[in-house]
Amino acid sequence: MRRHLFALLATTLCLGAAPLSPADIVAGAPAADWRTLDPANLLVMRLPAGTVIIELAPDFAPHTVANLKRLAHAHYFDGGWIVRAQDNYVVQWSQDGPKAKAEASHPGYAEFEQPRRASFRPLPDADAYARQAGFDGDFPAASGGAREWLVHCYGMVGAGRDVAPASGSGVELYAVNGQAPRHLDRNITLLGRVVSGMELLSSLPRGSGALGFYEKPAQRTRILSVALASETPHAPRLQLLRPDSASFQAYVEARRNRRDAWFARPAGHIDVCNIPLPVRTAK
Amino acid sequence: MRRHLFALLATTLCLGAAPLSPADIVAGAPAADWRTLDPANLLVMRLPAGTVIIELAPDFAPHTVANLKRLAHAHYFDGGWIVRAQDNYVVQWSQDGPKAKAEASHPGYAEFEQPRRASFRPLPDADAYARQAGFDGDFPAASGGAREWLVHCYGMVGAGRDVAPASGSGVELYAVNGQAPRHLDRNITLLGRVVSGMELLSSLPRGSGALGFYEKPAQRTRILSVALASETPHAPRLQLLRPDSASFQAYVEARRNRRDAWFARPAGHIDVCNIPLPVRTAK
Repeated sequence: MRRHLFALLATTLCLGAAPLSPADIVAGAPAADWRTLDPANLLVMRLPAGTVIIELAPDFAPHTVANLKRLAHAHYFDGGWIVRAQDNYVVQWSQDGPKAKAEASHPGYAEFEQPRRASFRPLPDADAYARQAGFDGDFPAASGGAREWLVHCYGMVGAGRDVAPASGSGVELYAVNGQAPRHLDRNITLLGRVVSGMELLSSLPRGSGALGFYEKPAQRTRILSVALASETPHAPRLQLLRPDSASFQAYVEARRNRRDAWFARPAGHIDVCNIPLPVRTAK
Repeated sequence: MRRHLFALLATTLCLGAAPLSPADIVAGAPAADWRTLDPANLLVMRLPAGTVIIELAPDFAPHTVANLKRLAHAHYFDGGWIVRAQDNYVVQWSQDGPKAKAEASHPGYAEFEQPRRASFRPLPDADAYARQAGFDGDFPAASGGAREWLVHCYGMVGAGRDVAPASGSGVELYAVNGQAPRHLDRNITLLGRVVSGMELLSSLPRGSGALGFYEKPAQRTRILSVALASETPHAPRLQLLRPDSASFQAYVEARRNRRDAWFARPAGHIDVCNIPLPVRTAK
């Protein structure tokens, strides 16, 4: 990786051009470095203000994701509500009424961590919360040796739970809307990541009740529908800059050491949660 | 600090009560652990939706803060605009028209770091971006040995600048609205922190232009006024949980290792930007 990057930087310098910014690298990434996301792993959540798309992580939370796919197939969340927006923490949504009652006895899961996978790619940088942090598949992850887990970066989506660890079944979901609450890592099941429309969730008015819950029903945002992209006509086709691609590696390095003109001092380090995974609409 | 905390935990255990949550510790902090913030160091920004209050950091950015106080005294920002809201990055505001023109030739400053102060209190935890991170005075800070600087946590406020490092004078301000963009540390002047009303800035609709700038004037939010609290009738009196107090130390420890009932696994670590500085309205 380092050799590739030095070569790339050297080429840039020899041409006399300004160093590439992270955005330049993403814009110039070849088609082979992008991968179309599987519509069977994408949730399409329609809100009055627009559409939020969530990529699911069945490799990390197989039971919770399977249950969530069942719920989406049954249109469980249609007519539900965003019930909570706590500043610099999470936005949360769920269903109420008879639908919620019907799922209340469903068992939950505690898919907090798993054996470390060969596909885990650690960053060289120190992480405040884990021995290593990096990426695995399409998600930010961390490892402490033999174990591995998804981490609570901005936009990550998890299954709310009760006090009992294995009580989250996917009927109550949350998305991180601020500084990564990494103390939640390995305490709750992360099952995916918002890949489009996060700004619709992050810009919601904050709830004035405890933990950011809305105190009046009228303050909640209606969920028009939640369905799998594979079951949604005209769902957008999204592509991810493959985290195992050379372009992604160059992008990470450019974010670690910003050399575009504005920067006076490259940081020399990067936090895993400061590396948004680039997503675009398929051309 | 550790001895104090163990004593506190032991007391809790002996009483058979549940361990204190961070919120419990803040709620129970004695009056002596709170300090009323100096109204001469508070900016009161009135927006149509409510009031944002910013604590200034003259110890860290003396020239920029002095200039900003001059601007506030002259009501420079009254009638200005929030011109930018970039998701998971910053909200930015400024003035336009003749007022902006009159300040255009004012010299800027590059108050990015300073000699390390004796009052810097490092956390024991690793930091991804600096040798040490912790608190100094009322602000999150980091140090790399002999130098010290404020860090870009959620809610921190800085002076926007041009490509020239010393081009920020305080006429263009920004606040961090997402994951701490620590790569900006030591690249731009931080001059304070939102201590009340951050949710009014973070919930603004994101701008659809490049870098989150609003593309149409009508999308911007009007700034009704910006004035020093010391020059504002009926400005709220705010108190900060003193970062050098025993209560704050217990609060940090409780955030590092959440032992309230819901948590299955205390993190054992904390990131400086995951320790919001508790502020309340004076009783």
